[in-house]
Amino acid sequence: MEKIFERLEKVRRNSPLIHHITNYVTVNDCADITKNFGASPVMADAKEEVQEMVSLADALVLNIGTLSTEIVESMKLAGFAANKKGIPVILDVCGAGATTFRNEKCKELLSSFSIEVVKGNISEIATIAGFNIKTKGVDASEVEVDKYNLAKKLAQDLEAVVVITGAEDVVSNGQDIYSIKNGTNIMGRVVGTGCMAASVIATFCAIDSDYAMAAASALVCYEIAGENAEKTSDGPGTFKTGLFDKISSLSEISVNKMKKIEKIG
Amino acid sequence: MEKIFERLEKVRRNSPLIHHITNYVTVNDCADITKNFGASPVMADAKEEVQEMVSLADALVLNIGTLSTEIVESMKLAGFAANKKGIPVILDVCGAGATTFRNEKCKELLSSFSIEVVKGNISEIATIAGFNIKTKGVDASEVEVDKYNLAKKLAQDLEAVVVITGAEDVVSNGQDIYSIKNGTNIMGRVVGTGCMAASVIATFCAIDSDYAMAAASALVCYEIAGENAEKTSDGPGTFKTGLFDKISSLSEISVNKMKKIEKIG
Amino acid sequence: MEKIFERLEKVRRNSPLIHHITNYVTVNDCADITKNFGASPVMADAKEEVQEMVSLADALVLNIGTLSTEIVESMKLAGFAANKKGIPVILDVCGAGATTFRNEKCKELLSSFSIEVVKGNISEIATIAGFNIKTKGVDASEVEVDKYNLAKKLAQDLEAVVVITGAEDVVSNGQDIYSIKNGTNIMGRVVGTGCMAASVIATFCAIDSDYAMAAASALVCYEIAGENAEKTSDGPGTFKTGLFDKISSLSEISVNKMKKIEKIG
Repeated sequence: MEKIFERLEKVRRNSPLIHHITNYVTVNDCADITKNFGASPVMADAKEEVQEMVSLADALVLNIGTLSTEIVESMKLAGFAANKKGIPVILDVCGAGATTFRNEKCKELLSSFSIEVVKGNISEIATIAGFNIKTKGVDASEVEVDKYNLAKKLAQDLEAVVVITGAEDVVSNGQDIYSIKNGTNIMGRVVGTGCMAASVIATFCAIDSDYAMAAASALVCYEIAGENAEKTSDGPGTFKTGLFDKISSLSEISVNKMKKIEKIG
Repeated sequence: MEKIFERLEKVRRNSPLIHHITNYVTVNDCADITKNFGASPVMADAKEEVQEMVSLADALVLNIGTLSTEIVESMKLAGFAANKKGIPVILDVCGAGATTFRNEKCKELLSSFSIEVVKGNISEIATIAGFNIKTKGVDASEVEVDKYNLAKKLAQDLEAVVVITGAEDVVSNGQDIYSIKNGTNIMGRVVGTGCMAASVIATFCAIDSDYAMAAASALVCYEIAGENAEKTSDGPGTFKTGLFDKISSLSEISVNKMKKIEKIG
Repeated sequence: MEKIFERLEKVRRNSPLIHHITNYVTVNDCADITKNFGASPVMADAKEEVQEMVSLADALVLNIGTLSTEIVESMKLAGFAANKKGIPVILDVCGAGATTFRNEKCKELLSSFSIEVVKGNISEIATIAGFNIKTKGVDASEVEVDKYNLAKKLAQDLEAVVVITGAEDVVSNGQDIYSIKNGTNIMGRVVGTGCMAASVIATFCAIDSDYAMAAASALVCYEIAGENAEKTSDGPGTFKTGLFDKISSLSEISVNKMKKIEKIG
């Protein structure tokens, strides 16, 4: 559980390049948050260039928020290239459960190449695990399920780190389970906080091959910045602006004092 | 004229899902504002999934701001599905009058399926009504026309509620005409305020089948939030941030005290 | 070197229409900044309408940030139409050097129609000039090169104004060389500041056929607004919001007092 701030410092020092193939709704937020952490975001989805862009990158984010058949083809080319280069692939299963198309394309991606981290809210991840859930668009639905076991079991099945975001985040690599209770309610009331979490996870995985602890560290730092942003905000607008402010000023003292992370199993 | 705040409360209580097929310029703003009102936005435009997404939704927003032939096909699939389900369709005729392509695609959409609310600025709506107007991109041009009659007559012709936005908004269902004078000049100097208005109208129509009063109530609430945001802003940047802040704090007292809505005819 | 504020005033008075075919990452920022300067942004990329949209416009921005083969076809149609109408075309070679696809499409655009201003950071512009550089996504790499000569020589070769952005911006029309040292470090830590610079340059070129001085004046005004924004910001989030605030309040006194522009050659 140590080395959370050390990871953040390594991100700032190395400034990894994070290639995104993502939705057009929150893409600017994802670029901003990546940059705020000291990394370098790039967004490119043309099939003609994704492989070459991956060859420059240190991690790859795939987000199905506004997917199309064409984009999925580019995601595959990028995924193969990432596997070949040995950089981590982070899949945000944004909106899984909402439509058959999303569910099938998630399956297709998961069976086409190696994905190192699969991230979603509880209803999205339960969908990926095979539960028959109708999610409400891209927002989480209530699901009666043991989140710890769900994450652990799915991680084993997918041979990937599984991240379930929510008031309590759960991260598992199939063996260890981490629980993170940082963050604030207002993050659920602002568009893009979920997608940004995937960018931050990718940023930390880019500099550390222990992807479970990298993902957990990413969430701790991101959500502490959220807690700091809430203190000076008057609502969702100033909260989002403040979130972008508070990341570059995250200090060792505040991270160590405020972190709420536990190893569950 | 009563029940404006009651409608807002119902939105917050029911949290309707608002499916958008919209432009890539202001899509993040549209998602944010929908969320701020307590509703749940979802953006999806792939022809493979729009029908299923509509089946989960409570209202559908179609915005032609960055249209393509392909997107219009998805809009049609979504529109048919919305009609079948009985949820309201809100068409933002963004940029109508600027190009023949936009004008023709608007006609095509309006003649393909039932649209419950057609919304635009004065030059866009005049274009839809058949006036030969060259608009300046997506901003309103001066048009010498009686807005009340234009809205009422077009509403009759289209069998839809017509909303003309501007310093004075006009809403008509072909019988009643409402005038709303809330809002502030700075809203015209910030990109996305028009597109966001369509999202808010859809949010209110999702919970109330009196679409004229729903649209009028939506504009009153949205624009009062704008007035509140202006008080704490130093320019267009802090205004937009403040607008996102002020929506969740709209109270019954402020809405009733500040509303400037009149039944004209 | 005079007439910088006069140019800004002419922009505000004439409110030119700036047509953008740009990436989906920073498109909202580009629209906002254009509007803040008093101009009118419009974004449209469908091949069916770009020519007609150009016929209404006063300048055209082409940005290859998230290019595709299809978009490049629309850029060509728009470019031909702009040449025919006689309005300036500004090409932002965003991410040139990162992939072969981007480099080739830049060449294709530059050889297809007349482009009045080519803008990029040092590694992007060096790529266009034929240096073999591997840029890191869309952020600038270190390049050992004489920026003044690079800009001047490339401007002669392309018969266009060349703009190299950075802590020191360099503008050349192949004869004169201007150096601008306004701005602040934080602009490099915020996504979209480069793309927005192209929008502002286009806005000033729309009202003045001396494109080198128009581009230089644009950068001076934009970056002074950045300096003003930094004073009231707590980080990248409030900086960006502040930047949107400070543009409309730029005064003759502050522009003349704060401008850091020099004619080098």
